[in-house]
Amino acid sequence: MLPFAVEEYQTRLRHVKDRMDQQGLAVLVVSDPANMNYLTGYDGWSFYVPQAIIVALHQDEPLWIGRAQDANGARLTCWMRDEAIRPYADTYVQSPTQHPMDYVAQVLAEEHLLEGVIGLEMDAYYFTARSYQRLQEQLPHATLKDATLLVNWVRLIKSDQEIHYIQQAAAIVTQAMDTALHVIKPGVRECDAAAEIFRSQIRGTHTISGDYPAIVPLIPSGPRTSAAHLTWTDRRYEMGDAVNIEIAGCVRRYHCPLSRSVVIGPASHHLKSLAAVVVDGVNAALNTVRPGITCGEVEESWQHHLKRHGYFKESRLGYPFGLNYPPDWGEHTASLRSGDLTVLQPNMVFHLIAGMWLDGYGLEISEPFRVTPRGVETLTDVERQLLVIND
Amino acid sequence: MLPFAVEEYQTRLRHVKDRMDQQGLAVLVVSDPANMNYLTGYDGWSFYVPQAIIVALHQDEPLWIGRAQDANGARLTCWMRDEAIRPYADTYVQSPTQHPMDYVAQVLAEEHLLEGVIGLEMDAYYFTARSYQRLQEQLPHATLKDATLLVNWVRLIKSDQEIHYIQQAAAIVTQAMDTALHVIKPGVRECDAAAEIFRSQIRGTHTISGDYPAIVPLIPSGPRTSAAHLTWTDRRYEMGDAVNIEIAGCVRRYHCPLSRSVVIGPASHHLKSLAAVVVDGVNAALNTVRPGITCGEVEESWQHHLKRHGYFKESRLGYPFGLNYPPDWGEHTASLRSGDLTVLQPNMVFHLIAGMWLDGYGLEISEPFRVTPRGVETLTDVERQLLVIND
Repeated sequence: MLPFAVEEYQTRLRHVKDRMDQQGLAVLVVSDPANMNYLTGYDGWSFYVPQAIIVALHQDEPLWIGRAQDANGARLTCWMRDEAIRPYADTYVQSPTQHPMDYVAQVLAEEHLLEGVIGLEMDAYYFTARSYQRLQEQLPHATLKDATLLVNWVRLIKSDQEIHYIQQAAAIVTQAMDTALHVIKPGVRECDAAAEIFRSQIRGTHTISGDYPAIVPLIPSGPRTSAAHLTWTDRRYEMGDAVNIEIAGCVRRYHCPLSRSVVIGPASHHLKSLAAVVVDGVNAALNTVRPGITCGEVEESWQHHLKRHGYFKESRLGYPFGLNYPPDWGEHTASLRSGDLTVLQPNMVFHLIAGMWLDGYGLEISEPFRVTPRGVETLTDVERQLLVIND
Repeated sequence: MLPFAVEEYQTRLRHVKDRMDQQGLAVLVVSDPANMNYLTGYDGWSFYVPQAIIVALHQDEPLWIGRAQDANGARLTCWMRDEAIRPYADTYVQSPTQHPMDYVAQVLAEEHLLEGVIGLEMDAYYFTARSYQRLQEQLPHATLKDATLLVNWVRLIKSDQEIHYIQQAAAIVTQAMDTALHVIKPGVRECDAAAEIFRSQIRGTHTISGDYPAIVPLIPSGPRTSAAHLTWTDRRYEMGDAVNIEIAGCVRRYHCPLSRSVVIGPASHHLKSLAAVVVDGVNAALNTVRPGITCGEVEESWQHHLKRHGYFKESRLGYPFGLNYPPDWGEHTASLRSGDLTVLQPNMVFHLIAGMWLDGYGLEISEPFRVTPRGVETLTDVERQLLVIND
């Protein structure tokens, strides 16, 4: 059932403990669902209630803490022994008096983990301000320290098995993009297109089961292409519409995202000009990718190209991806952005997304890639250009 | 484009300001995406970065603060004037030095909103511990106060237009449950069933466009039915399998959830016995519903029935639902739970979900309902029992 060998989880745990040790942490409380999964295998849609993994430098196994009704799910998906599953009673759920973090504090006390510094993921999704306050109140003598992204940085370099799932996700996103190109046509509602894309993402292929991507299909059309993150409506496509498609394949929670802009019927002159510049810029950026180059340098080659053609993109050019849960498949560590000094290494994977949102129109062309020992490998082979749908 | 008349947003704003006034708040910083939408109309998949609505007691319109690339989305979906849209630069995004809450603090200062108490949604999704710390640091002279759920409590009683969307969502979830019953059969993979259910949810009907539900289809089968929140795998259904289906329809972000357990082929004796008790218990609870009764009293009639038949359910029996975003369609205010003194009023809507997760098996039968002036109206007409699929 486990997507990885127990040894791989133990290797991850060792890497995390090395960083904890460097940062002077005796304990790490992990709240990010992707980080929880990374260290334990835990996989369930239960992150709508507070939950946590406790990693202690001197304990062999992490402890899972979650709602009682999710304990069976933890037993079915985690690699640890049953004793590591520590459910809290339902009276802690959305209660005006009790809070699940009170229980986390109790487990820390029971395990004698209050000596030494305790790291918290202060900026992780689902670790709310109150979660932090309650821990503070319950642990007056503990030293709490911000350990946001500690696990995420370990996730940055993928194992071969992780790359394997990402490549499977790439096959699914390629198929889903193909579905999109077939279903989008004049008269069809955006919601009908989204439904077919979703179906394609979740079915996967005959041999690979699709998992739910961390973000729903983003497919704004017409005037809504000027906005980056709008979802579908009941609008019917018209001749001449542009549609920005941002989707991902997902396998065992590992993603492969991809964006393309498509136009129904002939493209306008300004969209075609923009697309030509963007495609060349993406190519220029990809050509710089190899181990030893920084994230900032990749972005500079893109920005340089853009500038020569009179355009400017304020937002960053990309981010690492992989294992994740809603609301984001990005890993929040490095950015393909000016000044980012992260050095590329083999088996890092990035989503290079050249999204331009101008007044009244926009364009997105992206390429998910893996850094290889000698250069770069793009993960999909969808035509890298503004795609045209001829009705 | 707006799903409600501007007057309805203004009424909501007035209700929120009344509560602010009662609680001594001059300003409210709203981070929960559903609350943001409720007050402004804002609808985009951008809650993966910090964002906020600022409601000031003495300002006519709320202010929207979000990432620059989402400002066009705000202009397209909010009811306020353009001046109320306050985007932050991309340098704030996932940066080691800057944080979007620094910008929120800056806007509060620019608007002279630092006098008086500022309310924060301390336990809202996406309002992280660091978001709170940064606000504290940037606003050393402000008085910050916890205002979690202030807006959620206003949302508890629905307008007729909100009920209309929920009824449309009920039509969609009824259709999606029907899809599930047709697609689940021996040999089919769970992911294929999930794909068809999702397609049905998103397409909606010929006249109603489906929106994405805040939770993906939860459809554990076989031994995984003992766990509440597992998603699908590539497991193929077998004769004799039980499948717990928890899904929702969604229209303009308004949900209608529904759960049923189905069994492929004849049900086991223990599952049938459990189902008979659960259905009668649900009926008993529904029979108590009318304005003036407390949430606790509804749950007591269920618990009483259960106890008479030798069962016990620790977790609460239900929760209010409506407008929402991932990761949850519940509203986190009242609970159908022993001791909850919330008094039922017309146009409250609850998901009464009798989920029993026992050793090695489980069962879910639910009923979404509206409190009417005289009693109760259930929102779907799917047969209220353990459903049997005969291959």
